[in-house]
Amino acid sequence: MATDDRPTLTRDAMGVAAGIPLEVTPGGLEELRRDVQRLFDLEAIKQLKHAYFRCLDTGNFEELASLFHEDVTVHFKGGTYEWALEGRDAYVAAVSKAFHRQSIGHHNGHHPEIQLVSEREATGIWYLADQMWILEADFKTSGTALYWDRYEKQGDRWLIRDTRYERIYEVNEPGTKRPPLSTHYLGRFGGPSPSSS
Amino acid sequence: MATDDRPTLTRDAMGVAAGIPLEVTPGGLEELRRDVQRLFDLEAIKQLKHAYFRCLDTGNFEELASLFHEDVTVHFKGGTYEWALEGRDAYVAAVSKAFHRQSIGHHNGHHPEIQLVSEREATGIWYLADQMWILEADFKTSGTALYWDRYEKQGDRWLIRDTRYERIYEVNEPGTKRPPLSTHYLGRFGGPSPSSS
Amino acid sequence: MATDDRPTLTRDAMGVAAGIPLEVTPGGLEELRRDVQRLFDLEAIKQLKHAYFRCLDTGNFEELASLFHEDVTVHFKGGTYEWALEGRDAYVAAVSKAFHRQSIGHHNGHHPEIQLVSEREATGIWYLADQMWILEADFKTSGTALYWDRYEKQGDRWLIRDTRYERIYEVNEPGTKRPPLSTHYLGRFGGPSPSSS
Repeated sequence: MATDDRPTLTRDAMGVAAGIPLEVTPGGLEELRRDVQRLFDLEAIKQLKHAYFRCLDTGNFEELASLFHEDVTVHFKGGTYEWALEGRDAYVAAVSKAFHRQSIGHHNGHHPEIQLVSEREATGIWYLADQMWILEADFKTSGTALYWDRYEKQGDRWLIRDTRYERIYEVNEPGTKRPPLSTHYLGRFGGPSPSSS
Repeated sequence: MATDDRPTLTRDAMGVAAGIPLEVTPGGLEELRRDVQRLFDLEAIKQLKHAYFRCLDTGNFEELASLFHEDVTVHFKGGTYEWALEGRDAYVAAVSKAFHRQSIGHHNGHHPEIQLVSEREATGIWYLADQMWILEADFKTSGTALYWDRYEKQGDRWLIRDTRYERIYEVNEPGTKRPPLSTHYLGRFGGPSPSSS
Repeated sequence: MATDDRPTLTRDAMGVAAGIPLEVTPGGLEELRRDVQRLFDLEAIKQLKHAYFRCLDTGNFEELASLFHEDVTVHFKGGTYEWALEGRDAYVAAVSKAFHRQSIGHHNGHHPEIQLVSEREATGIWYLADQMWILEADFKTSGTALYWDRYEKQGDRWLIRDTRYERIYEVNEPGTKRPPLSTHYLGRFGGPSPSSS
């Protein structure tokens, strides 16, 4: 198909521009202080996304909610699913349903490329590698994806304003037997599973 | 059980406070210089932990020892094991025994969230994803965990002062056949294996 | 063998020196500005290597080429292969051939340890974890490796000047059946595969 001919995961196709250069600004103390703040902002945005992955896989929905802008836009395109959601509450509700006591989530975000756009706006690309078991369904999904996000600073806190991903590859394995688990955190602290409700 | 009701891997439960904000300090050159030093400290702590994972899986016990405070406290809770150790020497001895010529270690630390507490103290959360084969025992362990650490600066060097982890999940696979290896670094440079001693 | 007795993946054996300390420099505004630039340089080098992994696995050979010095030296020692190449064009040609429509590449670079050597030179160690399927050959390779690189700044851009890796372990699995893929980006946007040419 003609529409297949254009790669979707280039920086151009994702709409990620270069951002403010990673170079010091000429000038005096105030200019330098703004440069230093930019470095803190880069660190804060990484910690924000790092907390996101930590909260997902530990079913920590309360802290998870605190990482998102109230009006966040979410668009995740998997091989067998698509999430298109508007707003933090809808998103956290969907996650709470997916990360339940029969789930094992293993989501790691690698290779951050954060672009500062202004003092209060940034974009970012991340490389997701993930595995997810739904134990009661004998189902396992694994693969990789690229995220491209937009972040916004409210007061002193960076928040996720938009978040999108599209898969590099996805493998679905129905009939995956329950792995021989010796410990399973979500099994104790995840949301209620479909079979238990 | 009632004691099962409280999640153990929240920031509160791990005892990780917010730390010095990732924001520039008002003032003059000296204040800004301290801010810049904090950014170097964040980088140095990440490099410290990165060296730790590299040294583990390459059996580099000499450099590994240099990363820990002499009086380090270690507490790792796996699904089938628990390490509670006091002091660098005890810790390096335990690691040297585990990473032997019949081991393959694959330990990656993701998602650093480092909190500076003072000019010489910091805490940090990391998300471990690991696989470990014991070839002569046909045994493989894999899974994820959260680390929460405390770091201390001695002179110009950051050291690991306390380190703890608890599993998100752990899978144990006895009867795992030796994978078809074409190269195996620890097989040449790891410590002596139980069967060889 | 005697030559087997000396570990090859220590910092000494890789030839990676300590670099400029991660400490602020005494002095005035200009000295501090240079310190801040060093922090931007550390970030820029990480983003450079992060883009490299992203471009590999999405078959983005055009952006990939922009990350390398024209005269780059490449030396990768796998368990069953060895790449020793001179020059960006030779390297990009080799990658374009390997990341084709019957490939799934999953390459993640962890644990950056970047050492600044001067304002325009740096070295870096990375911990690679990778999986690569060649679907039409029913072949899968996985494992880990350490990279040690040299970077050079041209104008405002850091480039990869030398890149080497050696395996910690490598597993080769011929006879690996095509995984049950629900989506496969390189299958659409990778280079032509051997069977199709």
